[in-house]
Amino acid sequence: MRKIEHLGIAVKDLKKSNELFSRLFGKEAYKEERVEDEGVLTSFFQVGDVKIELLEATAPDSPIAKFIDKRAEGVHHVAFAVDDIYAEMDRLKKAGFEILNDVPKKGADHKLVVFLHPRSTNGVLVELCQDDVK
Amino acid sequence: MRKIEHLGIAVKDLKKSNELFSRLFGKEAYKEERVEDEGVLTSFFQVGDVKIELLEATAPDSPIAKFIDKRAEGVHHVAFAVDDIYAEMDRLKKAGFEILNDVPKKGADHKLVVFLHPRSTNGVLVELCQDDVK
Repeated sequence: MRKIEHLGIAVKDLKKSNELFSRLFGKEAYKEERVEDEGVLTSFFQVGDVKIELLEATAPDSPIAKFIDKRAEGVHHVAFAVDDIYAEMDRLKKAGFEILNDVPKKGADHKLVVFLHPRSTNGVLVELCQDDVK
Repeated sequence: MRKIEHLGIAVKDLKKSNELFSRLFGKEAYKEERVEDEGVLTSFFQVGDVKIELLEATAPDSPIAKFIDKRAEGVHHVAFAVDDIYAEMDRLKKAGFEILNDVPKKGADHKLVVFLHPRSTNGVLVELCQDDVK
């Protein structure tokens, strides 16, 4: 794991939260992106070399809607940049971590991503992401 | 806010969690530190230019013990490095954020720190920290 690539924050209302985080960081979100497969509308802020991704659910059964129902708005996941996602998946499986997808899927921001189950990582939903170069 | 300085993760058993995060990151914690005033024992991992701070409560009434009782183990706070903590407190107060301490206090890792109330920041406990230079 090279670095923290981004922090994902679950929000109820992206428009309101964009305004809130703009006030917090003193700058605007630099882009918005819809990820249909995940049922989310996202926005991104850059703080140093880490991105803050806000996530609003676009369907009541999306993982973000369920997270907010069960817990509340707040930090949803921590994403780490990796150079070789398959090698990292293999290393982490052998080290006893539970990986939620068998193969990486396309995430926001041109990434290939997999998640580790938070029950194997002290309650932290960990994402591994690699640039999806064509 | 210059960058994310560290992520704080609440854990029940620092020894076990040090072992877990060593397996996750492929390297050991580089230090442990007790902060008596906060009732915590902490350890630090370096991932890229961001630190991961694990926090174990050392007293049943410490904020970390209460957090775990109420929610569960997981991400507890996100700390942002600032150059001038007093100027940032002033800016954020004027921008409508609720600051939990009137004056900065000494945190782990030689920092002056203040926290913003999560109800003013979308459920995220935000810490501002500045190097405490003598």
